[in-house]
Amino acid sequence: VKLYELAAGNSDVRMSPHCWKIRMALAHKGIGAQTIPWRFTDKEAIAFSGQGRVPVLVNNDDVVADSWAIAGYLDATYKSKPDLFAGEADKSLALFVNHWSDSSLLPAIAKLIMMDLYNALAECDREYFRETREKALGQSLETFAANREAAVEVFRRLLAPLRMTLESQPYLCGSESGYADYCVFGAFMWARGVSEYELLESQDPLHRWRNSLLDAFGGEARNAVRALS
Amino acid sequence: VKLYELAAGNSDVRMSPHCWKIRMALAHKGIGAQTIPWRFTDKEAIAFSGQGRVPVLVNNDDVVADSWAIAGYLDATYKSKPDLFAGEADKSLALFVNHWSDSSLLPAIAKLIMMDLYNALAECDREYFRETREKALGQSLETFAANREAAVEVFRRLLAPLRMTLESQPYLCGSESGYADYCVFGAFMWARGVSEYELLESQDPLHRWRNSLLDAFGGEARNAVRALS
Repeated sequence: VKLYELAAGNSDVRMSPHCWKIRMALAHKGIGAQTIPWRFTDKEAIAFSGQGRVPVLVNNDDVVADSWAIAGYLDATYKSKPDLFAGEADKSLALFVNHWSDSSLLPAIAKLIMMDLYNALAECDREYFRETREKALGQSLETFAANREAAVEVFRRLLAPLRMTLESQPYLCGSESGYADYCVFGAFMWARGVSEYELLESQDPLHRWRNSLLDAFGGEARNAVRALS
Repeated sequence: VKLYELAAGNSDVRMSPHCWKIRMALAHKGIGAQTIPWRFTDKEAIAFSGQGRVPVLVNNDDVVADSWAIAGYLDATYKSKPDLFAGEADKSLALFVNHWSDSSLLPAIAKLIMMDLYNALAECDREYFRETREKALGQSLETFAANREAAVEVFRRLLAPLRMTLESQPYLCGSESGYADYCVFGAFMWARGVSEYELLESQDPLHRWRNSLLDAFGGEARNAVRALS
C-alpha cells in the first residue's frame, strides 16, 4: 500500500488533516504503508488518480482518492482487520462528525496556525498556496491570521460538544477509538506538525483524549511529529 | 408509560426540545404513552423524580429523568422493539450529536424564537422564565432576541455539517432514522410548537429531512403541532 501525503519543506513533516485521518486509519487496521511526500504544485505525480488532491491511496491496481472514500475502501477491503466503522449507523454518524470537523474546526484552526503553516511549506508551494488561499479568503494571509488571542477563544468554544462527550466516554466512538475520532484528531495533528501554538488550555479535559491518540498504535502520531523537531 | 412534558399556556402545545426527543423515541419504538402537561413552576408534580426538570418518564415502578437516560432506558427495557441505537459505537456518536444540538443549535434557535416562546408560556410560568433566563443571559429577553435577521444567518451556517451529511444519506443515522436524528429534530420541533418563524431558507436541502421526520410514525410530529393552531 502506498499513501501520497502533503509534505512540508522538510519532507518528514506531513501537513494535511485529511492525510492524518488516513494515517491513523491505516495504523488502526495494522496496515503498513509506504508514505510518499507530495507537494501542492506537484499535480503530475498524482495525475494517475484523476484528480489533484491528497490523500491518494494505491493498493496494487486500486487507486482511491478522498479520505472518506479511502476509509470506506479500507474497511471493505481488509475485512479481517479491526473495523474503522462498527456498522452502517455508526458510519453514517461518523460522516456527520467528519463534516463537523472539516466545516467547523478546520477553518477555526486555520486562523491560529496560518503563518506557521505558510512558513512550513516547501518553497515551491508558497506562491501557489498564498494565491489560492488569499483568493478564497478574500484577504491576505496576514490579515486572516491577525488577533490570534480572540480566535483561540472562538476555537475553544467550538470544542464544547466534543468536550462534553469525552467527559462521559474515553473516545467519540465509545470505549475504543474509531474513524470518527481520527476525523477530529486529524485536525489537531495538522496544527501539531507545523506550529508550536497550543490549541488547548492547560486544564482542558480534551488533553486526555488527545494524548491517548498520540500514544495509540505504538505512538504513531507522537513519534511522527517528534521526529521533525 | 407516562411522560411528563413541558407545556405552554395552551396545554396542547409542548415546548421543550428534550421532550420532543423522547416523543419521537417513543413513536420510533411504537410505545404508546400518556403524556402529561407540566409547567416550569409546578416542581411539586415531579418531585417524586428527585429533580425538577422534564422529560420524566414513569413506567410502573421505574422513574427516569433526563432525555439521554430515558433513551437508553427505552432500548434496554424494550429490547424487542426497534432500537434507537444500533450498538455501542452508534450510541457513543449519537451522544456527540446530542451535545452538538444542545450546545450549538439550541442557543442559536433561542435567539430566533425567544419572544414567541415567552408569549406561549402559561401565565404562571412567565415571571419564573423571565427571571431565570435573564439572569443566565445577563440581559433582557428583548435585547437577547433583537436582530433576528443577523441571528438567523448564524443559525443557518451552524447547520452546515448537518446539511452536508444529509446530502449523501436520508438520515443522520443512515437509511433509517434513529435517536441522533431525533436529538436534532427536537430542536426544530421546539421552534415549530411556539413560533411561525421559518428557520430554514426555502431552498434548504434540510427541508427533505425535516419533512420526513414530521411525517414519520403516522405524522406524530406534524399532527401534534397542527393540532395547536
